[in-house]
This record gives sequence, C-alpha cells and structure tokens, in this order.
Amino acid sequence: MSLLTTNTALVGRVTVAVDAMGGDFAPQATVIAALESLKKNEALGIILVGDQKMLEALLYLDSKKSIPQSCSNGDQPQKPTECSDISPVPPHLKTLASTFKDSGRLAIHHAPDVVLMSDRPSRALRRKQNSSMAVALQLVKDGVAGGCVSAGNTGALMLLARSILGMCPGIDRPAITKKLPAPKGGCYVLDLGANVDSTAEHLYQFSLMGSILVEAMEGIEKPRVALINVGEEEIKGSEQVRLASRMLAECEGVNYVGYIEGGDLFNDVADVVVCDGFVGNVALKTGEGVAKLLYQTLLRRFDGPWYMRLLGKLMMPVFKRFLKSIDPSRYNGALFVGLQGVVVKSHGNADAQAFEYAIEQAAEEVERKVPDMINSRLDELLF
Amino acid sequence: MSLLTTNTALVGRVTVAVDAMGGDFAPQATVIAALESLKKNEALGIILVGDQKMLEALLYLDSKKSIPQSCSNGDQPQKPTECSDISPVPPHLKTLASTFKDSGRLAIHHAPDVVLMSDRPSRALRRKQNSSMAVALQLVKDGVAGGCVSAGNTGALMLLARSILGMCPGIDRPAITKKLPAPKGGCYVLDLGANVDSTAEHLYQFSLMGSILVEAMEGIEKPRVALINVGEEEIKGSEQVRLASRMLAECEGVNYVGYIEGGDLFNDVADVVVCDGFVGNVALKTGEGVAKLLYQTLLRRFDGPWYMRLLGKLMMPVFKRFLKSIDPSRYNGALFVGLQGVVVKSHGNADAQAFEYAIEQAAEEVERKVPDMINSRLDELLF
Repeated sequence: MSLLTTNTALVGRVTVAVDAMGGDFAPQATVIAALESLKKNEALGIILVGDQKMLEALLYLDSKKSIPQSCSNGDQPQKPTECSDISPVPPHLKTLASTFKDSGRLAIHHAPDVVLMSDRPSRALRRKQNSSMAVALQLVKDGVAGGCVSAGNTGALMLLARSILGMCPGIDRPAITKKLPAPKGGCYVLDLGANVDSTAEHLYQFSLMGSILVEAMEGIEKPRVALINVGEEEIKGSEQVRLASRMLAECEGVNYVGYIEGGDLFNDVADVVVCDGFVGNVALKTGEGVAKLLYQTLLRRFDGPWYMRLLGKLMMPVFKRFLKSIDPSRYNGALFVGLQGVVVKSHGNADAQAFEYAIEQAAEEVERKVPDMINSRLDELLF
Repeated sequence: MSLLTTNTALVGRVTVAVDAMGGDFAPQATVIAALESLKKNEALGIILVGDQKMLEALLYLDSKKSIPQSCSNGDQPQKPTECSDISPVPPHLKTLASTFKDSGRLAIHHAPDVVLMSDRPSRALRRKQNSSMAVALQLVKDGVAGGCVSAGNTGALMLLARSILGMCPGIDRPAITKKLPAPKGGCYVLDLGANVDSTAEHLYQFSLMGSILVEAMEGIEKPRVALINVGEEEIKGSEQVRLASRMLAECEGVNYVGYIEGGDLFNDVADVVVCDGFVGNVALKTGEGVAKLLYQTLLRRFDGPWYMRLLGKLMMPVFKRFLKSIDPSRYNGALFVGLQGVVVKSHGNADAQAFEYAIEQAAEEVERKVPDMINSRLDELLF
C-alpha cells in the first residue's frame, strides 16, 4: 500500500475516497467534482486517490507550473494522453482546494497505477493492487474512508471490491443498484449488471438487500419489493423467477408485492425491483436510449421554419427544466450492495457534475451506515 | 371447424383472417380497424372470425336492431359483458361494410368460442379449438387466408399457432419481433417474449430468422445482425450469449456485427437485434414506460401559471405531432416468426387505430411472402 501523502484523518463526519484516475474525463472531472462536493457538504471530507504529482498540479495554484512532462511518477506513465489534456481547474476552485486542504477536509493519497477500461477484471485483480481503484478500496477496508467512488472499469471494481472488502455474510454475489425516477418517488432496481444468469437464491438475496437498503436510504418502512417478469400472471416467466417469487412470498421479513413488468418501473408500484443483472442492465440502458431519442425528436420539431424556431426559443427555459428533470447524470452513481463497505460506481463518461452526484450518493450511504444496517438485518433474516 | 358463413374466396391479392373477438376492445375495435384497413388498401381482403350474430349486428345497417339479448349463438355467451357495450360502428363505415361484402372483400366466419385472457395456454390448446383465435389460424393453415391477426392471449396464440401451423424446419421455437423506431430507420428486435431462458442455439436461430425477415420486409440486403449484451467487450455477458456470438461469427449467411447494449437500440447500428425473450420483453416495456413518463413530465411543465398554459396551448400542434411520432400504437403489431404462416399479435389494449397497424403488418408480411422466404432461405443456411 502507498503512503499517505497528507493527513488522511480528515475532519468531517463523512469521509469518501475518490478514485481520481477512473473514468473518461479523469482526473479533471473527478477533482472538480470533489471540490464542488466539499463546497456543498460541510460534513464531507475527501481523499483523492491517484497520481500525486498530477493531482497536485491540478489542485493547487502554487504548483500549476510544476506539471512534469511525464505527468506521472516517472516509471509508469499509465495514462500518457492525459498529460497534454490537463485543462486547468477553475481558479476559484483552486483557491478553495487550499482552504479545504488547510482545514483538513481534503487529502491526496498517492497511487502509482491505474486500472484501464480495457483491463480484464481478473488481470486487474492480479496486477493492479497499486492502482487508484484498489488503493481507494483499501482505504475503506482500513477504516480511513467510510466509502469510495470510482468511474473506472466496472468489472475490475467489482472483483477488487469483493477481494479487498469481502462480502456480507449470507450473500453470494454483490449487486449493482440505483434509484430510477418516477412521479411519486421512484424505485431502486437491482441487479443492474453485476451478475448474469442469477438463480432464484440470488434474486432472493438481492430482494433482502434491496429492502434493507431502501429502508436505510429512503426511510421507508417495509418497502414494497417486486420481481420483474414478462407478465403479471403467476404462470408466466422463467423457472428461476417463479421460484424466487415463491421464496419471497414465504419470507416474513420482506414486503413482497409480486411481479411487475418493465413498464411498471415508473408507476410507483414498488420501492425495490429485483431482476437478473443482464435484464436490469439492458432495461436501464434501453430506457436511457429512449429518453435521448425523444429529446432529439422533440428538438428536431423546432428546427423548421422561422416561427417554429422562434417558438423553440420561447420554449427553451421549459425544455431546459424538462431536460434537467430527466438528465441521466442526475441519477449517476450506482451502489454496489452486499459488500462490507460503501462502493459507488459512476458512469465511465460522467462529467464533473455527474460525478458529483456519485460522490453525493456515497456520502449519503456512509452517513446512513448502509453496510452496517445490511449486515445486522441480514443476520436477523438469514441466520 | 365452423362453416363459412359467406364466400371466403375473397377478392384481393392479400387476405387476412382477423380474430375479431380478441383484445380488450373487441369486437368493436377489431371490426372498425378491419373496415378502415379495407378502405385504405384496395388489394386487401378480410375475414372477420368470431360470433357471427354479434359481428353482423356491428357491421350491417339492416341488422342493427337484430342484436339478440344473448349477443352470442345462444349456448355459450363467452363474453356477456360486451352485449351492452356494443357501441355502434360509425354509419359511414357500415355503409362501406355492405360495399366490401358485396364486392367480395369482406366475410364473416363464425367461431362460437373465445380464448379468454385468463385462459392458460395449455387449456386453450385442449379446449378452445372452436375459438375465434384457433379458427383464424386454421384459415391460414387451409390457405383460405394468407395470414392472421389477434389481440388475444399471447401464450395461447403462440401455442395454438405452433400446433395448427407448425414450425419452419430447423427452428425449435417461434420468436416475437417488431420494428423499433429510430431516426434513420430502426431495427427489428427478437425475441420479445415468446421464450425465456433461450440457449445459444435458439439465439442463433432467431438471428437467422431475423436476418431473412428484415431482408424480406425492408429490402435490406445482408442486414446487420447484433446480439444484445451487457457490455460491448468480448469478455462480458452470459455464457449462452457468448456462445451464440461465436456461432454467428462463423456463419457466412449472416452479417453479424457483434454485441450492442440496450441504449444502442435507437442508434441505427444494427437492423436485427437478437436477445432472449425475457430480456427483450422487459427492455421493450421499459422503453415504453420511459416514453410515457417523459410525455407526462413534459405536459406537467405547462400546467402552471397562465402564461405557461398559454405557451402550452401554442405548442399543442407541435406536441401532437411529436406524440404521434412516438405513439406506441403506431408500432402495434408484433410478428411471430418461425411458423409456417403469417401470425401478427396486437397489443391486448389496442384501440381501433392501433389494431389497424397490426392488420397492416400482417398484410405486408403476406404480400412479401415472408414465411416462404424464411423456409427457403433456412433450407440453404441450415441443411
């Protein structure tokens, strides 16, 4: 493990380790997001994990001109393309960075290596223990940080998290979940892609975890849990889903409400929606694709004669609010559940604002002590 | 089998048997849709299959007052609730109905029974051989109609179609497919719910059928075929999907372009998209759910102060065109492929206009001789 380069016993009730090198726009986006988060949430402390020199060059006014040619620690320039891409962090944020550093709410933790998007997860597990991703997870394991966020390689993050943090007792596989918006609150869907070919037992475990998570995060007592199926009738669906349904119907600790279909995800008929990761991932991405298509279609309607373009201009404020309300970046930050620690996965192509939402998610999970709650409630339910 | 009540050797190049009793708004919606279709497509002939007296009462001006109390053939009033619900078919359509009947383009074929939405498919197969659904399929089998359309119970339609029409040689299971819209043309997705737990071999067969279908329906030579996966990298995804990918990569008769994710369904990166029916069904319904949610969200934006409502009113024509362009009913009508005949499934809750699209789909498939093409091309590819 790398040495701490600054004091990491951070001030603040909630400390989040940020994999500063993960994602398409790292480290600029991750650094800006970290600073904006610190500005907004006074209870927050952040440890930026990554190439120390690069991060310092980005963060501090006085080190602006000291960016080395290699942009790295010299021996392993893992992301050379980023050297010339370093767009300066806005000066007002740099000023803030020094303040946060001085008040002990911001620290840099050096990690010499980076997990690439093209790395096979198994290779990352064997070879990238000094990566920003692995070191951020290790900080959680060691109790230095309450949770961590990464926009890097999902498979690698999952495998490293399982290996470094370990699983909750009684849970075979971690799941990925996030909250989908709906008019009256929305629902958490799991799994969103950590697992394929889930068995009934896995779906059952996802249901338990989802139920506890939503109780902790949303304060909903006995959240309604539903299984996704291809039809609402008891006779339809795959063998594993029907078996999971029978297991849930017999489980007193879960408020199981039965099957729902894909279209019901936005109807507020359940608080927790459970499915196999293949199904959840395709559904989520299809939904995002439809939203994008509709937005483009709508915009094209105003790209005609002058009066249509004028109407379009008049409507812009409304569209902007509309767009903001459906903006996927507002819902960035998927939670890994089933692990002994808080791990939030950001979209790889998240910009600074989207990454900020992911940090917010992690901070909230840490504050609400979600892993502890899952551990203790699972203990009651399973053993 | 029931007797033909009118001459069914219909005039017209394309004859479609319509299960007039299937769906939430049958028989009114199906009858109106049939008449509108005949009005628009002069090459079309339609056989309405269902309760003869009820259909006659709906169709013809002179029989308007002769609706019997039982609304049925007397012995089995299968859908008694509809007796009082018969809203008259508009008079101008009734006038047309007589003309169509006289010119030999419209016929009624009596079927005393109805498959209910609550019927188990296996029960429908054993007990409902005299249902409008089964009789419509039998008319296709006998060559009286080129294809058939139903808005009834999907599982029953699938089982009855397999039993009555039989499968194409070399195909284990039929698949459900429809065209999803996208800016530059869209793609056909299969399977949309006929099968769960598809093996690699099934996915491979769906790919072959999809490729031939799109070539026939859209005139695209060597359509691009993609598999849905949870990531684009070769290492991700379930065992069966990866195996299917290897099979397709080796198949010279298919222009296989690799994996796509859910969000790519609307990016025009493939003409045929293949997945397990559970995945396809959930993705499709999620997409429809998102579209509905966005539309409602947008409308709410104009439900505020007076100037917003005024803007909303000004925008209505634009919204209406927008809404029409994304209206799921425009895309109503899913094709069953792999069967020895044309079978189109309409949404159960389709109104007359949506059902018309389904009839249109069937007519086009019949005209383009899709089952013949699939049969002969499969023969080249598989044997």
